Amino acid sequence: MEKVINALKTKLADEQISTNETVRELHSKDETYHQTSLPDIVVFPKTTEDVSHIMKVSQEFKTPITPFGVGSSLEGHVIPYQKGIVVDFSFMNKIIEIKQEDLLVTVQPGVTREQLNKELKKYGLFFSVDPGANATLGGMAATNASGTTTVKYGVMRDQVRNLEVVLADGSVIQTGSLAAKSASGYHLNGLFVGSEGTLGCFTELTLQVYGIPEHVVAARATFPSLTRAIQAVTSILQAGIPIARVEFVDEASIIQINTFSETDYPVKPTLFLEFHGNEAGLNADVAFTKEIMQDHDCDSFTSETDNAARNHLWDARHNLAYAYIHGHAGKKMMLTDVAVPISELANSVIYAREELDKLGVPGGILGHVGDGNFHCLIMIDMANAGEVKRANEFNKNVVLYALERGGTCTGEHGVGVGKMPYQRQEHGDALDIMKQIKKALDPNNLLNPNKIVEVEEGNPE
Amino acid sequence: MEKVINALKTKLADEQISTNETVRELHSKDETYHQTSLPDIVVFPKTTEDVSHIMKVSQEFKTPITPFGVGSSLEGHVIPYQKGIVVDFSFMNKIIEIKQEDLLVTVQPGVTREQLNKELKKYGLFFSVDPGANATLGGMAATNASGTTTVKYGVMRDQVRNLEVVLADGSVIQTGSLAAKSASGYHLNGLFVGSEGTLGCFTELTLQVYGIPEHVVAARATFPSLTRAIQAVTSILQAGIPIARVEFVDEASIIQINTFSETDYPVKPTLFLEFHGNEAGLNADVAFTKEIMQDHDCDSFTSETDNAARNHLWDARHNLAYAYIHGHAGKKMMLTDVAVPISELANSVIYAREELDKLGVPGGILGHVGDGNFHCLIMIDMANAGEVKRANEFNKNVVLYALERGGTCTGEHGVGVGKMPYQRQEHGDALDIMKQIKKALDPNNLLNPNKIVEVEEGNPE
Repeated sequence: MEKVINALKTKLADEQISTNETVRELHSKDETYHQTSLPDIVVFPKTTEDVSHIMKVSQEFKTPITPFGVGSSLEGHVIPYQKGIVVDFSFMNKIIEIKQEDLLVTVQPGVTREQLNKELKKYGLFFSVDPGANATLGGMAATNASGTTTVKYGVMRDQVRNLEVVLADGSVIQTGSLAAKSASGYHLNGLFVGSEGTLGCFTELTLQVYGIPEHVVAARATFPSLTRAIQAVTSILQAGIPIARVEFVDEASIIQINTFSETDYPVKPTLFLEFHGNEAGLNADVAFTKEIMQDHDCDSFTSETDNAARNHLWDARHNLAYAYIHGHAGKKMMLTDVAVPISELANSVIYAREELDKLGVPGGILGHVGDGNFHCLIMIDMANAGEVKRANEFNKNVVLYALERGGTCTGEHGVGVGKMPYQRQEHGDALDIMKQIKKALDPNNLLNPNKIVEVEEGNPE
Repeated sequence: MEKVINALKTKLADEQISTNETVRELHSKDETYHQTSLPDIVVFPKTTEDVSHIMKVSQEFKTPITPFGVGSSLEGHVIPYQKGIVVDFSFMNKIIEIKQEDLLVTVQPGVTREQLNKELKKYGLFFSVDPGANATLGGMAATNASGTTTVKYGVMRDQVRNLEVVLADGSVIQTGSLAAKSASGYHLNGLFVGSEGTLGCFTELTLQVYGIPEHVVAARATFPSLTRAIQAVTSILQAGIPIARVEFVDEASIIQINTFSETDYPVKPTLFLEFHGNEAGLNADVAFTKEIMQDHDCDSFTSETDNAARNHLWDARHNLAYAYIHGHAGKKMMLTDVAVPISELANSVIYAREELDKLGVPGGILGHVGDGNFHCLIMIDMANAGEVKRANEFNKNVVLYALERGGTCTGEHGVGVGKMPYQRQEHGDALDIMKQIKKALDPNNLLNPNKIVEVEEGNPE
């Protein structure tokens, strides 16, 4: 590694390169149960040129590169299993430009979503994608993150207008343009978003933002059973109500929320909803939604127009994963993440709940049910090999159930290492096309190797 | 070609293979000024297996393949400049499944958008993407088509949930799943949509559809100048009004519409608008829009809730290209297709109008201004070499103006051959990544060769 460090130092300052044990340890893990692995070196680029230099050094010495935002990843994407260099983007955290008239913003990859929204608020704008964590926008683009507002505003890929990407050889490309739509060339924006650092490193992102809605109504609805709650969601979607958020939280998770966020929500299967638009239209949408809920035996429907109450509700929802972690010291979090066609959602959630009951570890079901995406969040004792094995088996069962019904193994958390075992089953021969793309763009297999696709010949999948 | 035909015949029936002069001539052109070129053979597959066989024959004899829908393409995509085999998908025109509960439909590539909408109507559903032509859905996916409703519902790429694709070697892949969102694998849906037959042939498409909106209001607004009309659009977008359609049509084009569609619209710069939603919400949106229009000196604002009047308005708009063709017998159509950031739209249209005036050929400006996308439609005398040269120069000037302002050379028509000269300038070094992808997926360069990217070494661009 001495040679690699010396090569890095030809363009990077000493404080941009670390082999410190604590720093390496901080870059050896994500927020979940995945096994840790220490990198050899952590680097902190400040410019695109720095990243380009790091890439060239990586190629010269055949040293793997793993990009890192804040490490809020959930499937081990940021864990450097092949060691080498972790590239931490926390120094590249500038909001470069807000083009108010075009509803566009250009940021460096280390900017977090909360940092961006704080700034955008001054302009009456907001960025829509909201995973639970205060993740970096670079990381969110790398994993095609989404969140509670996806049902209305779309996933991360839908917001990306252009990326500046440093490729394996250190060259720099732009993947899109500033136009709202384009039919020019292959869709590189779409290819690089969700590529999890396996095709290049993002050094600048131009993202679509939205005007803060004129009027917002949040609501909570509780149901006698999980099934009825999910069926209500299906009906709302089919009625075409342009809902902005519709989140399911089960009873076990409501208990965690009440404890962690000091709320006193009834311990029942609950939908958290939100509507954005003009006042007259929203009133009609809320009334229609309430009617549909009642058709599904909803036993309470509370709407909140007050800003503080609404924020508290969504903070509670966003903090749910942390509530579980906080409530189960010493255990590690595992999250399933399937998405299924809406017609399969109710049965999929019922199946998952039954499997979760059999598993017998603390956990709950929650999710972005408007997209057919739900999570089983479970807390596992990593010292108990039997429990870990059964938890993995549970995750697998939930995934296979979804895949058999035309779903996906990951709705929003990405592949990382956690969903590698299901790539062949989900994508079939299309996985070979992905491998060909990976080989063409990263011939030495140094960019976050063995994530999404494994390119080695004869590798058993 | 004898050998190729014999190889095709091992799996295809005689009536699926044609070398008839008239049939070849029908597959030698698109709807515009682009130079024609006769294929050697036209084949009519009926199944995915047929397409797979055709691909294998193409590889065996190194014969180029060009897919063909109804030939409504505008940039020469379907013209077989390298001759070889044209694959006409008109026999693959079945609607395979409508999954009403999931708002999904699976179709063969030869199904046209009007055919699909006629069927969907029975279920209270519609497919949103509406280019002027009654194009096939396979062709629309191949070119990432869009149309008048894109400002609300998105482009073709946004509707594609899954594609069955036959690759160069005859193997068959699925590019997506039935889930509304996924973070699994590379985004092959996005890569294949817009690939214009250069990476594979689509044999099945699963598309997202929508419930027919509860309430629809259409409107026409006229303005004293083109500038004021475009500025009004910019203001509507910035106000965040969820408009479903906003189309600009200039005076010259209103004259064509009035003649061809027997309307008597005032000959003024005009916006055609549409709003979808619940009645109360729409009334508020329409009122707010009218206010904004008036701030921009709108001199008439007429809204239509009557179904027949509304349909007539949109038919008139959709038939505009045909109105021009009909009104200028013996001439050929050329359409520019840039899209620019909204902040650049007014100046871009003014620039285009000035250049069009200098050019001195019949033509007008129209477009999907809500997406920053507009077309200059001009009719040219192909026998007049000077006029053709000046028209090409005009097209180039409009493109360069857009590219210099962060726009794209094609908002929706695609690259084909018409936009090949601008690929390097628009994409820079990213074009080399596109070439690498093309080489990886089509190593013998037989799939619609020399469209989007030219892979030959030393090819001057």
